[in-house]
Amino acid sequence: MTPAFDSLETPSLLLDAEKLERNCRAMRERLGSHGVALRPHVKTAKNVEVAQRALDAQAGPITVSTLREAEYFFDHGFRDILYAVGIVPGKVARVARLVRRGARIATIVDSVEAARGLARASAAEGVRIPALVEIDSDGHRAGIRPGDARLFEVAAALGDSLEGVMTHAGDSYNCASVEAIAEVAARERSAVVDCAAALRARGLPSPVVSVGSTPTARFGRSFEGVSEVRVGVYVFHDLVMAGLAVCAVEDIALSVLCSVIGHQREKHWLLTDAGWMALSRDRGTARQKVDQGYGVVCDAAGRPLDDLVVADANQEHGIVARRDGGPIDFARFPVGSRLRILPNHACATAAQHAEYQLLREGRPAEVWERFNGW
Amino acid sequence: MTPAFDSLETPSLLLDAEKLERNCRAMRERLGSHGVALRPHVKTAKNVEVAQRALDAQAGPITVSTLREAEYFFDHGFRDILYAVGIVPGKVARVARLVRRGARIATIVDSVEAARGLARASAAEGVRIPALVEIDSDGHRAGIRPGDARLFEVAAALGDSLEGVMTHAGDSYNCASVEAIAEVAARERSAVVDCAAALRARGLPSPVVSVGSTPTARFGRSFEGVSEVRVGVYVFHDLVMAGLAVCAVEDIALSVLCSVIGHQREKHWLLTDAGWMALSRDRGTARQKVDQGYGVVCDAAGRPLDDLVVADANQEHGIVARRDGGPIDFARFPVGSRLRILPNHACATAAQHAEYQLLREGRPAEVWERFNGW
Repeated sequence: MTPAFDSLETPSLLLDAEKLERNCRAMRERLGSHGVALRPHVKTAKNVEVAQRALDAQAGPITVSTLREAEYFFDHGFRDILYAVGIVPGKVARVARLVRRGARIATIVDSVEAARGLARASAAEGVRIPALVEIDSDGHRAGIRPGDARLFEVAAALGDSLEGVMTHAGDSYNCASVEAIAEVAARERSAVVDCAAALRARGLPSPVVSVGSTPTARFGRSFEGVSEVRVGVYVFHDLVMAGLAVCAVEDIALSVLCSVIGHQREKHWLLTDAGWMALSRDRGTARQKVDQGYGVVCDAAGRPLDDLVVADANQEHGIVARRDGGPIDFARFPVGSRLRILPNHACATAAQHAEYQLLREGRPAEVWERFNGW
Repeated sequence: MTPAFDSLETPSLLLDAEKLERNCRAMRERLGSHGVALRPHVKTAKNVEVAQRALDAQAGPITVSTLREAEYFFDHGFRDILYAVGIVPGKVARVARLVRRGARIATIVDSVEAARGLARASAAEGVRIPALVEIDSDGHRAGIRPGDARLFEVAAALGDSLEGVMTHAGDSYNCASVEAIAEVAARERSAVVDCAAALRARGLPSPVVSVGSTPTARFGRSFEGVSEVRVGVYVFHDLVMAGLAVCAVEDIALSVLCSVIGHQREKHWLLTDAGWMALSRDRGTARQKVDQGYGVVCDAAGRPLDDLVVADANQEHGIVARRDGGPIDFARFPVGSRLRILPNHACATAAQHAEYQLLREGRPAEVWERFNGW
């Protein structure tokens, strides 16, 4: 028996089932039309029901950011896992335990040192652990630049663990236009396709050619030569994605339900019980054209109140103000009334909660658990 | 059997027992010397062992920021609880359940509307729930300004639930000097002492005169007329407190253990497995004289490497760079080597973890659990 909407505790994390399913379907259809496989990144939701909707299947290929995710999803029937954070020797024993239980876990490395560490540690465990070489397609973070001959040294150090190449166009989050995202996507694709071709030209295998970010998956014009796309935040979408025109604000499936706990009349503030503990400290829209503070304020039904944002956040206090700082009609928002906050960054906001209150047609339908930790 | 230090998983949250105990003792002694009671704010650690060290007792008066904290600490023997976030009628039933089990839970209100809501809801539950009127001593957030006659209206609406006044000098976090903090502390004290006197002059009770913030508790010169001080972050301290001169960097008891997972040679970056999921997105030092990025980098023994900070953070990646952007001697930090990161804001960083690895004399001694949620 799920509670009535009005009796949900605040703050709590709401997930709109219809929007979730629409977002999942749109990505499946888009990648399907390009003939490229989807390997959803489960770090966003850390929940099996969401991953199943992303794949439209009980299980399938997934990307993880922690070994706890790998273990949890393996326990829920997922066998084909890419651990997309550089592997260190100290973590190989945990990977090996899953491999011995029947998982197929690919790892990533971007240096000879890391490749040798993986080779040594997996030999000590007596298992073969496949690995992809991480390529740096945009200067965002890790990886070997296309054209850098270290690619072949790393490939050699991996020996028969080598299965291909991968990259993440993290810079796509900083683009100022759809056109710029499409260009980042083209570089993301060509970086790994070229590196895979270079490996193959030397007789080395590269069956896996993996790319991924939600913006580049949305606006990339070609996935030719790519074997799979890793995407995470699109299942929920968020204000950062809306600011990039990757989604509309109406597509955002996640929100934080909160209560108005007070009025600061002199400052024209509503105080709520959703502070950064419920919203996260993420300020991802701060560098976008429209800074959404700590989130866009909606009424309890989820309709944006376009003039209100969460202007500041303390641990358990949210400060809601008009964008222009002007007066608020407090009578519309009595103490105890409820609001919903759309998140800047869905991965960060979801991580502040232990469960999703799934809404169907606006009514609580199920409670889905999520986890954190490593 | 606790693990050896070298076999701790990364990322994990380390808590230095000696520093914790020294911080707790220092605050007890300081407030004791002023003859004012300590009511620690347990929102920072959300852990019973830490609260017991703060009080140097199995239980005692505490401040909470969520009803889940109230329930958890009540279940661990704590009976005297102040819920220091404005109460709304929808939360009174949970408070009443604890009251019927024997808890003494005081609440706070700052408007006639909230006071009437509390009165109605507690009458419906058949319990008396004490309340303090929240006073705004510094324009930081909530509360009634000193001198505002609404104080008496709220007191009247509370009726026999009225037990006094409280304030939180949140603006002390933004001070540029110790002198400025002392001035904020003086205003914090006078705000509630004056309001309590005004209530008493009208024959209304105000046995509780409650103040609190770690900076004002540290540098306040007088607590005359104050009955209790609420402080939270001092148990761990953090870089924000160090930036305010409230503590030394060496007093920070909390750190995140991480592994070096890669080197970005062109950009002079170390990559680690402590991203914002392990560190939080808090950038509290960004507005201070020294911006510490996402944290100060230490060696595995906890000694600050003064030239290194966490320059940026993705979900599971930390980017470590020299403050001046200059080259890093990568040979000192091989893949798989370990670092410790001191947090900007201990409350936020601790909230990203489910347990503390307690270190005694630098060695893992116990695992202490913590919780989140509402």
